[in-house]
Amino acid sequence: MVEALVCTIGDEILIGQVIDINSSRLALALEEAGIHVKRMVSIGDTREEIASVISDALSRHAVVITTGGLGPTKDDITKAVLGQISGSKGYVVHPGQLEMVHRILESRGLDILASNLAQAQVPDTAEVIVNKLGTAPIMVFRNVRGGGTLYALPGVPHEAAGAIPEVVEDIRKHQPLGSILHRNIMVYGIAESALSEQIAPWEDALPADMHLAYLPNPLTGIRLRLSVYGGEAEHQQKRMETQIDRLKELLGPLVYSEKDSNLETAIGEMLKKAGKTLSAAESCTGGEIAHLITSVPGSSAYFLGSVTSYAISVKETVLGVPAKTIESFGVVSAEVAAAMAEGCRRITGSDYAVSTTGLAGPAGDERNPVGTVWIGVAGPTGTRTVSYCYKNDRKRNIERFSASALNFLRLILQNELKY
Amino acid sequence: MVEALVCTIGDEILIGQVIDINSSRLALALEEAGIHVKRMVSIGDTREEIASVISDALSRHAVVITTGGLGPTKDDITKAVLGQISGSKGYVVHPGQLEMVHRILESRGLDILASNLAQAQVPDTAEVIVNKLGTAPIMVFRNVRGGGTLYALPGVPHEAAGAIPEVVEDIRKHQPLGSILHRNIMVYGIAESALSEQIAPWEDALPADMHLAYLPNPLTGIRLRLSVYGGEAEHQQKRMETQIDRLKELLGPLVYSEKDSNLETAIGEMLKKAGKTLSAAESCTGGEIAHLITSVPGSSAYFLGSVTSYAISVKETVLGVPAKTIESFGVVSAEVAAAMAEGCRRITGSDYAVSTTGLAGPAGDERNPVGTVWIGVAGPTGTRTVSYCYKNDRKRNIERFSASALNFLRLILQNELKY
Repeated sequence: MVEALVCTIGDEILIGQVIDINSSRLALALEEAGIHVKRMVSIGDTREEIASVISDALSRHAVVITTGGLGPTKDDITKAVLGQISGSKGYVVHPGQLEMVHRILESRGLDILASNLAQAQVPDTAEVIVNKLGTAPIMVFRNVRGGGTLYALPGVPHEAAGAIPEVVEDIRKHQPLGSILHRNIMVYGIAESALSEQIAPWEDALPADMHLAYLPNPLTGIRLRLSVYGGEAEHQQKRMETQIDRLKELLGPLVYSEKDSNLETAIGEMLKKAGKTLSAAESCTGGEIAHLITSVPGSSAYFLGSVTSYAISVKETVLGVPAKTIESFGVVSAEVAAAMAEGCRRITGSDYAVSTTGLAGPAGDERNPVGTVWIGVAGPTGTRTVSYCYKNDRKRNIERFSASALNFLRLILQNELKY
Repeated sequence: MVEALVCTIGDEILIGQVIDINSSRLALALEEAGIHVKRMVSIGDTREEIASVISDALSRHAVVITTGGLGPTKDDITKAVLGQISGSKGYVVHPGQLEMVHRILESRGLDILASNLAQAQVPDTAEVIVNKLGTAPIMVFRNVRGGGTLYALPGVPHEAAGAIPEVVEDIRKHQPLGSILHRNIMVYGIAESALSEQIAPWEDALPADMHLAYLPNPLTGIRLRLSVYGGEAEHQQKRMETQIDRLKELLGPLVYSEKDSNLETAIGEMLKKAGKTLSAAESCTGGEIAHLITSVPGSSAYFLGSVTSYAISVKETVLGVPAKTIESFGVVSAEVAAAMAEGCRRITGSDYAVSTTGLAGPAGDERNPVGTVWIGVAGPTGTRTVSYCYKNDRKRNIERFSASALNFLRLILQNELKY
């Protein structure tokens, strides 16, 4: 397996000013392409650190990828150091990147300074992959001093992310990676350990060339990624299909998507296909459910809106929850969750409405411990409620309440819309 | 200055399964204590990598901090390797951590397995800082082989975060760090480059022992952190005060807090103090404003609720925006933003209401380009509106719209509540 080292360059990482997300994005893409990331390193903008870490890495690994240090300011010295390491005798202008520098600055209505033009200059030892999202070119230094190949990417996260597919493609062209196929299964509603137990017989019987990875996320559940290495594509695809079918049978309604997706996208797809609409009435989740649903582009096609009824008065006046329901059962109850969902469905005119009422923390109330949530879903066939109790801090309780509510809605939609 | 290396241990980082947030949290805390993080490294759970990286680091740096690799499963081999490096002859049970293991598992209603009890065992070369949030102890290996001191922290982020203050305290006890004081100023409504220009004369005239850092964040604006190194505390405090007063004068209403805070917390403090209430009417921000406001513990004291009026019908029926206002001015307009805020204030009975209507993307409409937002604030003295246009993707536009709305509200509250 080809081994890689990923290196982040920039003082801002070392003083904790920014969290490095480039490295994990690179790692995910490399791993999926069959390239093993052996080590990640973050260093500052100092000549000695860059030279020593990169030289050492190139002598040990076939692939070294750096992000950062390519900006136009005087702190950014990476390009000069890489030129030196690779034995460059001078700089050349790359016409494609120069054109891009002009185009980008003009579209932003900015004057073009000498420092901007210098961005299109690269050491004469570098090949260039044009950066279409920024001014700094992606540089490739091949087999430096007879060792590994270095890819230098910009540090701005969306520019680095944009460069990843082309970098992976370039590695593939020059290294014997072998083929690799992946299939995803998105699962919600089970802990990682319980899932692992439930599918153990299937997982243990997987053929030797297939590998299963668990990729958990508090908001989206667990992504199961099945990979197969080598072999003829069509044949492997069929073998994967067989395994995936068995896995889906084992997991039943825990499965909500066969793409790398999330609950709000899966819900959106079902509603869109069925031509149905949705609204939300949130108490303890305070807007997070609406935020998740509307983070999906095109969600205005099915999401009508929501009410965050944080105060009891808003539950009563806006959503029409009867005061005596709140009095009799308490504000955190199945009855109030149901009345909120029904009220929201009525005032917005949506086909479905999802609701939450609970105690995210820091404290519980006289009836319920902190971490309790009641979730309601009102729809054309009636209203259903469910309750959970989590033991996290406020922030994570809000996340889990929201994801649980989306999942409860997803299960009902999957059933009623026969998806 | 004392130099440190921070090392994350665990395959899950190298395959991009999780983003490493421990390192940046450690870096921020170390930097604030006057310890310079020279390098960060992430490695997998392999004996050779752990041994080679840690041995090398201890020979070069006074402080080495690892996170991860301390779990009870067989993948986690860090403890054994650290024992070996430090010349340990065997394991000893730490009674304080053993008690904690019992207490934690009992509180979760879990059986205590042999692997859990083994968590309280440490190499006889280790000092222990009891981990109160989990079963794996924090281990300190002092001056390993005559070199640096190693701190081994658990990888679970909230456990690692919980250990940081005690680790920093321990470093301070054993290393000549010198004193350091910090003051924060939170600023919103200006780009980093413009801010830097505006305060350049002041910053350039700062005494040599004072240092200013810019810590930008899309949701909270820019945190300016002024630090002073060494000297007598009371005297330095006074000198800082003088500089901070000048800085505040220069920045005027751009400043919203003198703590490491955020807009939603600052708004909450003003409302609470004045005994006033708030509601929100969101269109393009889709619940993000309510989510931010309710992420503050205790927000139920002043936040009554919100309406996410994604569909035009909900703007009309729930918020009472006149159909002819939408028809005449378009849904993204000052008039609709004002009517939304006023309607929300009316139906919730809040003192203030903030509203947004805009186009987060991917597309604009026939009247406005994508990235346009109108923000309204209705209050006891009337309604005001403001508009911005941003050029980001959907996700970042929603963030900027939300932060801009909170900031517009903050400016009005600061003025009206004489804060």
